[in-house]
Amino acid sequence: MRKTDFNLVIQALKKFDTFLIASHENPDGDAIGAMLACGLALEKMRKRVTLFSPDPLPENLRFLPGSAKIISRLQEKKFDAIIVLDASDIKRLRLNLSGLRYQALINIDHHPQKKPFGDLRLVAPNASSASEIAYLLIKNLVDLNAAMATCLLTGIFTDTGSFQHANTSPYTMEIAAHLMKTGANLNKIARATYQNKSLSALKVWGLALARVKQDRKKGVTLSAITQKDLKEIGAKQEDLEGVVNVINSAAGTKYALLLLEQKGNKIRASLRSEKGRGVDVGRIAERYGGGGHALASGFTIKGRLAWKKGSG
Amino acid sequence: MRKTDFNLVIQALKKFDTFLIASHENPDGDAIGAMLACGLALEKMRKRVTLFSPDPLPENLRFLPGSAKIISRLQEKKFDAIIVLDASDIKRLRLNLSGLRYQALINIDHHPQKKPFGDLRLVAPNASSASEIAYLLIKNLVDLNAAMATCLLTGIFTDTGSFQHANTSPYTMEIAAHLMKTGANLNKIARATYQNKSLSALKVWGLALARVKQDRKKGVTLSAITQKDLKEIGAKQEDLEGVVNVINSAAGTKYALLLLEQKGNKIRASLRSEKGRGVDVGRIAERYGGGGHALASGFTIKGRLAWKKGSG
Repeated sequence: MRKTDFNLVIQALKKFDTFLIASHENPDGDAIGAMLACGLALEKMRKRVTLFSPDPLPENLRFLPGSAKIISRLQEKKFDAIIVLDASDIKRLRLNLSGLRYQALINIDHHPQKKPFGDLRLVAPNASSASEIAYLLIKNLVDLNAAMATCLLTGIFTDTGSFQHANTSPYTMEIAAHLMKTGANLNKIARATYQNKSLSALKVWGLALARVKQDRKKGVTLSAITQKDLKEIGAKQEDLEGVVNVINSAAGTKYALLLLEQKGNKIRASLRSEKGRGVDVGRIAERYGGGGHALASGFTIKGRLAWKKGSG
Repeated sequence: MRKTDFNLVIQALKKFDTFLIASHENPDGDAIGAMLACGLALEKMRKRVTLFSPDPLPENLRFLPGSAKIISRLQEKKFDAIIVLDASDIKRLRLNLSGLRYQALINIDHHPQKKPFGDLRLVAPNASSASEIAYLLIKNLVDLNAAMATCLLTGIFTDTGSFQHANTSPYTMEIAAHLMKTGANLNKIARATYQNKSLSALKVWGLALARVKQDRKKGVTLSAITQKDLKEIGAKQEDLEGVVNVINSAAGTKYALLLLEQKGNKIRASLRSEKGRGVDVGRIAERYGGGGHALASGFTIKGRLAWKKGSG
């Protein structure tokens, strides 16, 4: 991250008075954590802040302070500045920018960006998360408090997969230490986001793992869950969030594939890989009309799933 | 941890020349990580070191530098000092101390101890792990290197459950940051210890989770795996290591119970709970002739398991 970019964003956050803070569809812990922390910091600076997410928050992020303030439909159309967090592509906001009036679009992200956007860009692919960048900004603007620290640590915790992913640097750990000293409870965050699964969620995870298959030649490890499975167990589709990462961790896996049957003759595929395995799952997804990036992607095709018992 | 205890142990480590370092049966990442790091540090101080574990190392810890030096049968019987790491009870060493000659028994641990032992005791229940205490000692004795850092971070990582348990303090995170700066690769440690599961391990985890049941009144969430299951999947018993912690994280759980059928008409039960749930699983295990402590215990009973399909 360039010092000049950093300073320009700091200046803009000080200068402007009304902000729209927005993040991507299907929001995750990092998108919401960074958004809420920035919102809290700007409010402390006596700015007026609107928080926007195109999709509602997943259940496990609703413990975050201020999360009830996030809206999915904009009433106001005029802001001094729009801050976009954690979005590698402006399209993922599902926000009609041309219908809004604003002086500056500020893009803060940790993904490498294929289509850079924004009047001001603070893009740091070395940061673990948007929340890690937000931490550095906020520390330069206000005194951190426990609510901000909780939001930021949630973003860092979830986007590093509990500090296990390769994006976790020693600085990430030092930041986590500081956030804990400021009042964030890491154990509570872990329990709210990762643990505390419903019994039916645990069962459907189990079913997905029990069914796992591997094609050693292609290096793909895959599993599948049908609508019938969900119905029998009483589980929801969102209960399967994260299971593809576990499948991706199986020995011998070059990439993981989870097929999830949708209502209405559709199948949603989620793909994951890891650095150094030589697979670009973004390209695989593109072939099927989907998208994403080299290590995480997805696509939807027409059809129904049949899973033969005993075929695992 | 009392400053005087700490200084006395430092003095002893400097004074003596030959050491036996020992840890508990069924060794985990913390026992082995702390043992290896202490061994490496003492060797750097030109001491003679013997490393002892009553049981062989689990597969996923054999990547640790120096792990091949750990022995399970003692040839030598005379040492200046014996260092016992991570063992709340001296019995868990399965070491005939009366058959050994030594000047001092040094007990370094982070568990609250029911039967304190040792001529020197450095017991710090606030530390995340024995490895965290070992880190503080080693830092006062030698320059840390990458090999020591890898061992210590493995101990901290595994005993905090990837920093998710309540024993993770801000200081734990700062220590982890320092160890990473010294050359420990957290992502590699996570992959070696937690991920990289065999396909059959993943399947048997899945089966255990898919079968989970909950008695809401008693607050027990349980699952069971038979010998037939293991055989059909081609999994080993040690593949189930850790799954009881996942069962313990289900919503509504006061304590988790995993029943694992053994060869020869025996069933092994593992119990887990968490702080604040008001259950002492150590007491439950004692009732059945087993042992452990309030949050983790186990027992073995005679019998065979029958798991009815569809009873989940």
